[in-house]
Amino acid sequence: MEAAQGKLHRRLHVKPDGRRLWLYGWEPHRGEPLEELPPAPAPAPHCRWHPLRSEWVVYAAHRQERTFKPPAEFCPLCPAAPGASPGEIPFAAFEIAVFENRFPSFSPLAPEPPPLPVETSRAAGACEVIVYSAEHAGSLAALPEERVRLLVEVWADRCREILARPEVAFAMPFENRGEQVGVTLHHPHGQLYAFPFVPPVVKPMVEAFRRESLLERLMDRTGSAYEVDGDANATAFVPPFARFPFELWIATRRRAPGPWAFEAAETASFAAVLRRSLARLDALFARPMPYIALLYAAPKGEEAHFHTHLQILPFLRAAERLKYLAGCEQGAGTFLADMLPETMVERLKAAAP
Amino acid sequence: MEAAQGKLHRRLHVKPDGRRLWLYGWEPHRGEPLEELPPAPAPAPHCRWHPLRSEWVVYAAHRQERTFKPPAEFCPLCPAAPGASPGEIPFAAFEIAVFENRFPSFSPLAPEPPPLPVETSRAAGACEVIVYSAEHAGSLAALPEERVRLLVEVWADRCREILARPEVAFAMPFENRGEQVGVTLHHPHGQLYAFPFVPPVVKPMVEAFRRESLLERLMDRTGSAYEVDGDANATAFVPPFARFPFELWIATRRRAPGPWAFEAAETASFAAVLRRSLARLDALFARPMPYIALLYAAPKGEEAHFHTHLQILPFLRAAERLKYLAGCEQGAGTFLADMLPETMVERLKAAAP
Repeated sequence: MEAAQGKLHRRLHVKPDGRRLWLYGWEPHRGEPLEELPPAPAPAPHCRWHPLRSEWVVYAAHRQERTFKPPAEFCPLCPAAPGASPGEIPFAAFEIAVFENRFPSFSPLAPEPPPLPVETSRAAGACEVIVYSAEHAGSLAALPEERVRLLVEVWADRCREILARPEVAFAMPFENRGEQVGVTLHHPHGQLYAFPFVPPVVKPMVEAFRRESLLERLMDRTGSAYEVDGDANATAFVPPFARFPFELWIATRRRAPGPWAFEAAETASFAAVLRRSLARLDALFARPMPYIALLYAAPKGEEAHFHTHLQILPFLRAAERLKYLAGCEQGAGTFLADMLPETMVERLKAAAP
Repeated sequence: MEAAQGKLHRRLHVKPDGRRLWLYGWEPHRGEPLEELPPAPAPAPHCRWHPLRSEWVVYAAHRQERTFKPPAEFCPLCPAAPGASPGEIPFAAFEIAVFENRFPSFSPLAPEPPPLPVETSRAAGACEVIVYSAEHAGSLAALPEERVRLLVEVWADRCREILARPEVAFAMPFENRGEQVGVTLHHPHGQLYAFPFVPPVVKPMVEAFRRESLLERLMDRTGSAYEVDGDANATAFVPPFARFPFELWIATRRRAPGPWAFEAAETASFAAVLRRSLARLDALFARPMPYIALLYAAPKGEEAHFHTHLQILPFLRAAERLKYLAGCEQGAGTFLADMLPETMVERLKAAAP
């Protein structure tokens, strides 16, 4: 785990309610825990089978009570301070902190589902919150490069640890950014969901990668025509079949199944290209771009074929116009794109931050 | 086509740019056309194959220019009036009007796709706009019952006509309701999309219905436990695997492949239950419920198995809280529900309009 930057340090802290918190940094984490939040309720999610969609739906009824846009002085992701109300991270300082979600949709502690007139299953798995910085304001694009590199290392470490659990089939780090996509906490953070099944979006991806090394082939075939940024190790490009406005994918040029298989130079390149790409999206309309960003890494057992990559799905098609997912997208599953990928490439290239 | 109400009348009018307009009513439509809108641009959508999702993405770049929340006096769906700016319907009165969309994502006139480094196909099919009323204000739930029944007849007639075209595999009437789901025109209307393929959401539905008559079996097994409204012919129920808050499905008790196969009493029941269900959703938070409503009918060739039904997918989980489709839904395809279907049933029953 030697990165260009140095060695990744990890400290485990177990909260009074049993939830785990990991403090990651380029420096060892020190300091005594301060006041903790009241214990979380016992998680009770369960899955039900949707027979017309052939997919699991996850019910986590207690999530209805979750924290909803608290004022900044009660931010549960800010570091602890004497006299301040406690948050989820009872330490005065940290680089990156990861903790088990207070309102998980998947949990190692998920109970057996209740008896129901439909097929059910345990919502085993994990939901973790990844706090990028102790600073309440800011964004992933605005963090220093070494911090984004640390984040890639954290993704690698969390995926490795979680995929080793017998009940987990797939782990997905992601970030929802912006109130327009439903973000309720503004402190820069992402999440990681670990699923007890390979979810619907990932199944055809797995099959595609089994058939061919699709991303490498796409890069070969399109050359630099769809590339927006890149270096010797990593590339940011608009897929020629983009669904979202200004959709950008980031991948290493060499196939790697997950960030845990990156060489140090690949981690550095991936982080640098990601950071510049997010800054470019913010520059496009001179405002923070709302997006969903997803790191796809190999489900368990698919390491030999899968090409890990990060998809950024932006939601602004113009400065004041959101992309909505309405009847055709939701009802048919078919995306309508207003803008050609070729236009996206041109406009993204022109939007240098 | 004898309904309890009387006979469905249809009048075809071809607009100067070649687009068709159908005027439907319980009464024959009369009157000379008034001023028409300037001609629509030639439609040029095309499809590209998304190899990691195994689905078609539709590009309709000219849609970026489409009408965006015009002031009411320029509503393109209002009837024509001497001295007023022209709209899409050049007649002074109508019951229900259907016309070919000015900015279609699928079109009988779709050209051959351009040469591209990805697999492409023609965006053949159709996009129609269904205007429920000549009145600019209002909603489907607030229309008189005979008009909602007329709408069900219109869906039947449009589906029948469009499914007879060789290039069409599936036709889907739907409605996006509310600015929260991206509605740009407030005049009460829905749409109909006809696809040259069976879209991703419908494929597993087709397979499920081939295996068993799923909705009839579900009704048998759950009895009235999930039913919110209904009569001898039609029912409105919360599926025990609901994904959206207060999700409601409306179906005839007897399996019918599409509304074209309804008996007159079924059409009347379906319309009445639909209208009351929408009113119930509006009553829930004493405000118009944003929703996507989708009428699923048998794709071509699946008439022997498919059970047509209408799904209403509401977007308010509380008076001021929208359901967002974020990282887990978009990125994994797995829905997180905050509310149990059993709770939805109780609350919907209590929300009698």
